[in-house]
Amino acid sequence: MTGSSPAAAVVATAVPVSVVERLAALDTASVSDALDSLGVTGVLAGIAARVPGTRTAGIAYTITYRPVDADAAGSQFRNAANYLDDVPAGSVVVADNGGRTDCTNWGSLLTAVARSRGVRATVLHGSARDIAEIRAAGYPLFSSGVTMVSGKNRVQLAATGLPVDVHGTVVRPGDVIVADDNGALVVPAHLAAEVAERAERVEQTEQAIAAAVRDGLRLDEARQRFGYARPWDGPATGATGATGATGA
Amino acid sequence: MTGSSPAAAVVATAVPVSVVERLAALDTASVSDALDSLGVTGVLAGIAARVPGTRTAGIAYTITYRPVDADAAGSQFRNAANYLDDVPAGSVVVADNGGRTDCTNWGSLLTAVARSRGVRATVLHGSARDIAEIRAAGYPLFSSGVTMVSGKNRVQLAATGLPVDVHGTVVRPGDVIVADDNGALVVPAHLAAEVAERAERVEQTEQAIAAAVRDGLRLDEARQRFGYARPWDGPATGATGATGATGA
Amino acid sequence: MTGSSPAAAVVATAVPVSVVERLAALDTASVSDALDSLGVTGVLAGIAARVPGTRTAGIAYTITYRPVDADAAGSQFRNAANYLDDVPAGSVVVADNGGRTDCTNWGSLLTAVARSRGVRATVLHGSARDIAEIRAAGYPLFSSGVTMVSGKNRVQLAATGLPVDVHGTVVRPGDVIVADDNGALVVPAHLAAEVAERAERVEQTEQAIAAAVRDGLRLDEARQRFGYARPWDGPATGATGATGATGA
Repeated sequence: MTGSSPAAAVVATAVPVSVVERLAALDTASVSDALDSLGVTGVLAGIAARVPGTRTAGIAYTITYRPVDADAAGSQFRNAANYLDDVPAGSVVVADNGGRTDCTNWGSLLTAVARSRGVRATVLHGSARDIAEIRAAGYPLFSSGVTMVSGKNRVQLAATGLPVDVHGTVVRPGDVIVADDNGALVVPAHLAAEVAERAERVEQTEQAIAAAVRDGLRLDEARQRFGYARPWDGPATGATGATGATGA
Repeated sequence: MTGSSPAAAVVATAVPVSVVERLAALDTASVSDALDSLGVTGVLAGIAARVPGTRTAGIAYTITYRPVDADAAGSQFRNAANYLDDVPAGSVVVADNGGRTDCTNWGSLLTAVARSRGVRATVLHGSARDIAEIRAAGYPLFSSGVTMVSGKNRVQLAATGLPVDVHGTVVRPGDVIVADDNGALVVPAHLAAEVAERAERVEQTEQAIAAAVRDGLRLDEARQRFGYARPWDGPATGATGATGATGA
Repeated sequence: MTGSSPAAAVVATAVPVSVVERLAALDTASVSDALDSLGVTGVLAGIAARVPGTRTAGIAYTITYRPVDADAAGSQFRNAANYLDDVPAGSVVVADNGGRTDCTNWGSLLTAVARSRGVRATVLHGSARDIAEIRAAGYPLFSSGVTMVSGKNRVQLAATGLPVDVHGTVVRPGDVIVADDNGALVVPAHLAAEVAERAERVEQTEQAIAAAVRDGLRLDEARQRFGYARPWDGPATGATGATGATGA
């Protein structure tokens, strides 16, 4: 995934494209359950979907903002988003503005550039603007807030490629971001393959339970039968055509 | 309404089905005004509609969660939602997770089970996940928050049938829940018939005022004419075909 | 704009209709950038769009509420919204309930009256109800919160025509309100023409940059070329058919 763009920065990730695509086919609920089974916290608290119905998975490309220097402010805008020319296709931009919701780090122009570069989504520990245009574009945007006030001359780019801390959950460059209408979470790169496998089993278990309930079984019995206590093990018994089920 | 399901738990309610249906035809604004006229607080503060355009009324079936026992956690999920097999048709599930928004008590599987049992809606003093699926299903869901983190292994069922306190407003089993895009409220069972009658008069008064304004009357004059000061008495004068108007 | 309604109150505004219409054609992001260039804060913090996809600009007509007198409460509702008969066409109602979100100052009846009078939108430092109906009507509504609890008998009209303070940003009668999915802001009347001109240049600059990026230019180069540091000066060079560009 890195190096696929002419001027791409190198995102050091150990995650194969195939694993990202498997995570992209899962919802955040299943991925979160898989993380739970490993004792890992992935949720990026307070960051909500701003374009209903979108979902994404991609490699985190991290951006850190800081307030402008007081003595340097005034005469000129900082080009706070020029990093975008260097973001590789397949990335999810993760921009940290310290959770500030009073000024923005994303808008319609960046959305257009991101789309043209194959960037998959944007996750802001901060705010966005141009919401109507971004919604019309169907671009997956997740943020702490919404306002129309620009971050220009209020914050400036401090770094790219640093870990980003969202209420205690750390996103490192190269980790995988998965996000949908439930919110956004991070899967550590070294766990991505294991999480994908466990999350797929969670979905198989849930599907087996749902099918049994549709066939008239009580919920408690269906959950008992298919091993809901450890859904990441896959449907324990009785599933027809289940793959990857290993039992407990 | 109780006993209408094969394995239904008994929900002790004094509210006739016909009264629930009358409340189901009213919006929360009118019902709230009727409660105001009786000096009763019904609003369940902080609980918002998660599926725009849905509305509901039904008998409260209450569920209480508590954090998992610290010394017992770890090895196995608690089947935190198996109560659902016993909820009667016509119920609204009211689940109390103490307003916690960091883990969920509802998702798409429970939605499917609830639908199949004739459960009308779910109100969470807590959070939900699988929002996209629940929205696609058009299921009336109201909650304090949204996240993808499961309540499994974080909280466990403490009780069913206890009163639930939402910021000072108490929901008792058998009360009537009314909810729409404005939020959710509770109508105490013993007041349900009186509230339905007053709320119907509120709507008649509002309709009389709206019609008069459409015909060119000033708002202040229309309100004066139709007794807006006490809308639960019904349109005071001039309404054609009004029923149930008693005047002040 | 004032005096266009039979019983219109006089809204003292120095803003020509043509300037309001120019502001109505701009989005809040561009207008906010123009205000930034003048060192003026316009954002009405915490007030969010409640009807996605709507936008508005109009002359602020201010309303102030206060809690009902404790010793006078009880026997009768205050007709808290009868001011609406006197609001001129082209206005945006700005109602200050001190940011309270536990009771409402707007609903579907007021929306119908406002529409019939040519009122363009409503901005509440407070809450609204009848959200489903207002959304169906496509009326531009912006508020701090949503609930179904009436302000009747909780708050009463204290004044019309006073300045309204929203977290430090002051709206004066006759100022211009601009609002869209990003939120709501105020443009002081005496700056309206200058802000419209600068905001138009901001949009020209953004459009020039967007076009260049679509043509394959890097974002940083496009921003450099078109003077993104001072977008309110208009696209600095290279824009075809740009009007009003003055350069830095």
